[in-house]
Amino acid sequence: MLIRYGVSTGFTSLGSVKNCMLASSAVFRRQQFLIRSLGGYSDHIDSRRMQDIRSMSGTTFEADAENVMREITSVLDPSKHKGQAGKIAVIGGCREYTGAPYFAAISALKIGADLSHVFCTKDAAPVIKSYSPELIVHPILEESYNISGLEDEERRCISSKILAEVDKWMERFDCLVVGPGLGRDPYLLECVSEIMKHARQSNVPIVIDGDGLFLVTNSIALVSGYPLAVLTPNVNEYKRLVQKVLNCEVNDRDAPELLQSLAKQIGGVTILQKGKSDLISDGEIAKSVSIYGSPRRCGGQGDILSGSVAVFLSWARAKGKATTSQMNPTVLGCIAGSALLRKAASLAFKDKKRSTLTTDIIECLGRSLEDICPAC
Amino acid sequence: MLIRYGVSTGFTSLGSVKNCMLASSAVFRRQQFLIRSLGGYSDHIDSRRMQDIRSMSGTTFEADAENVMREITSVLDPSKHKGQAGKIAVIGGCREYTGAPYFAAISALKIGADLSHVFCTKDAAPVIKSYSPELIVHPILEESYNISGLEDEERRCISSKILAEVDKWMERFDCLVVGPGLGRDPYLLECVSEIMKHARQSNVPIVIDGDGLFLVTNSIALVSGYPLAVLTPNVNEYKRLVQKVLNCEVNDRDAPELLQSLAKQIGGVTILQKGKSDLISDGEIAKSVSIYGSPRRCGGQGDILSGSVAVFLSWARAKGKATTSQMNPTVLGCIAGSALLRKAASLAFKDKKRSTLTTDIIECLGRSLEDICPAC
Repeated sequence: MLIRYGVSTGFTSLGSVKNCMLASSAVFRRQQFLIRSLGGYSDHIDSRRMQDIRSMSGTTFEADAENVMREITSVLDPSKHKGQAGKIAVIGGCREYTGAPYFAAISALKIGADLSHVFCTKDAAPVIKSYSPELIVHPILEESYNISGLEDEERRCISSKILAEVDKWMERFDCLVVGPGLGRDPYLLECVSEIMKHARQSNVPIVIDGDGLFLVTNSIALVSGYPLAVLTPNVNEYKRLVQKVLNCEVNDRDAPELLQSLAKQIGGVTILQKGKSDLISDGEIAKSVSIYGSPRRCGGQGDILSGSVAVFLSWARAKGKATTSQMNPTVLGCIAGSALLRKAASLAFKDKKRSTLTTDIIECLGRSLEDICPAC
Repeated sequence: MLIRYGVSTGFTSLGSVKNCMLASSAVFRRQQFLIRSLGGYSDHIDSRRMQDIRSMSGTTFEADAENVMREITSVLDPSKHKGQAGKIAVIGGCREYTGAPYFAAISALKIGADLSHVFCTKDAAPVIKSYSPELIVHPILEESYNISGLEDEERRCISSKILAEVDKWMERFDCLVVGPGLGRDPYLLECVSEIMKHARQSNVPIVIDGDGLFLVTNSIALVSGYPLAVLTPNVNEYKRLVQKVLNCEVNDRDAPELLQSLAKQIGGVTILQKGKSDLISDGEIAKSVSIYGSPRRCGGQGDILSGSVAVFLSWARAKGKATTSQMNPTVLGCIAGSALLRKAASLAFKDKKRSTLTTDIIECLGRSLEDICPAC
């Protein structure tokens, strides 16, 4: 990771995907040598490149996450009405998994979204509803076991109905989160592919995590070239994605270059690579978030992250060009989501230590955000 | 039990299971008489035997539980990723019982495991899920009432599917807990027997409690000769086990010898005999844990214990030979699990007195562990 290996990277316009990492890394080291030799900036290095180099070095590569949060967090205003602070929908929750979509959806509310929906299977819905009366849970998805024995025509008919049901709501959502607790049932994933296509047609941003990444890794066209897609892979999901898209192995030393190549190769999607430091790139720039979080690795923290990124992304998008950083709202959303989760995890860990669970972290989201940008 | 009756035992290499307890006990009493008569140690008693006697007396027979916990508890390290602090699975939960598997599974998380799964019947799943979004609950087991009227072939087909479903996960688990809220349905127990066989083939440790002990007592071959099996019987379960395996009655005076014989006879499984003091043996050594717990005997504490033992056993096994005590990781897991439950029960009782429930004790697991080995 970046912190462990120091800053050894330079970002150039990336050409050949396979070789670029080594090349750009070598160029950057050469440039660093030149700077040191000349005791300052060399005329031989053009000023734009120098800016790139400086932005890669030391603290400037690390995102100014707190400022980003302050800049994009929705202002609370009594004249606003319900929905204006964000309407999020989580697509996930099946017979096996119910906790993950709940974590993502409730996190969105705890950060400040006004409405949080979950679209899940019929089996999962009563359970998810029972976790919290705050969520709007739609029991509409189907898994293969529930429609076995049906003719193809009937199955297609059910798919269409599911899609029509989601479509009724699509335009109202500021962001979809696809994947928490989705499972890997082929019929269900086929339906979710269609939902993603419709979201894309409606220009609704999509944050993709968990089994959503399994789906996307096998059908990269679903997100390829869609600048409002955000992928949030963990170590293993990232490895699979790199193997599939770049046909190479992950190399920690050149992590930021590889990430940037990957994001570029998928046509400018934003990727938040989770790790000791989170790395974020949209193919154009790369940022890291290294605020100390917690050493607990209990399952569910990724779900908090996906819900958080969805809210911040929606807020950043609503601000449009009003942000001074001029960064892509998807990147801003990732920076803020990553930083908030880390702060909340750190607070929860202070209190609960080894017994920290995901629900404890969720309970700290509000206070963490308040510490950085007070509501009033 | 040990505290009540004082130290009246000696451990020798045990030969004939039925007669050894009486024999060794008689020898030991004779030796004690000799020591008293001579006002010290007698040259007529060989030094190895004396060492045995001394190690049985006072504090050395009592496990140094806090040190064991400190030694085996997984180190929290930000560079670790999800799953590395333990992945536990509880096999249990049926139409009748849903609390027990929840207690075992949530205790594992509260102690510091990263992921906790429950494999239960379809009826039990929504309820167990609703207790906590932190658990991953698989609704896959079947009871006879649900498959009555089916042909043998169909029943076998369902069994195979259940087994295949568990097998998909088996290699990922660091430990199984079989029994909490399992019930005694014959069809279900048949499936669970198969699951245990597969776990054994994969070298996954198995902690067996509750109705899992009913199953094992009637099919001792399931665990016989498997050094990664841990049985955690209460008074009655222990009586049945002794009757079945050693064909004799339990005798409190020679409790540790009997326990050691039993563990040896079952081929070196580890047994944690629950009581006023918990006695633990793997057939080679015996240890007691007598830290004061609580006088409350509300149901569910055994489930906390089974989940705790599973986590500590996994950690001890991961440390391998790095532990200075050189004890069997199953014994270390039992010592730590027993001590932690007792400490947590004591803390909960201080606060809640007569109204102490199992959930109150679970809430004290984190603080109890933190008191002994601080997270950082």
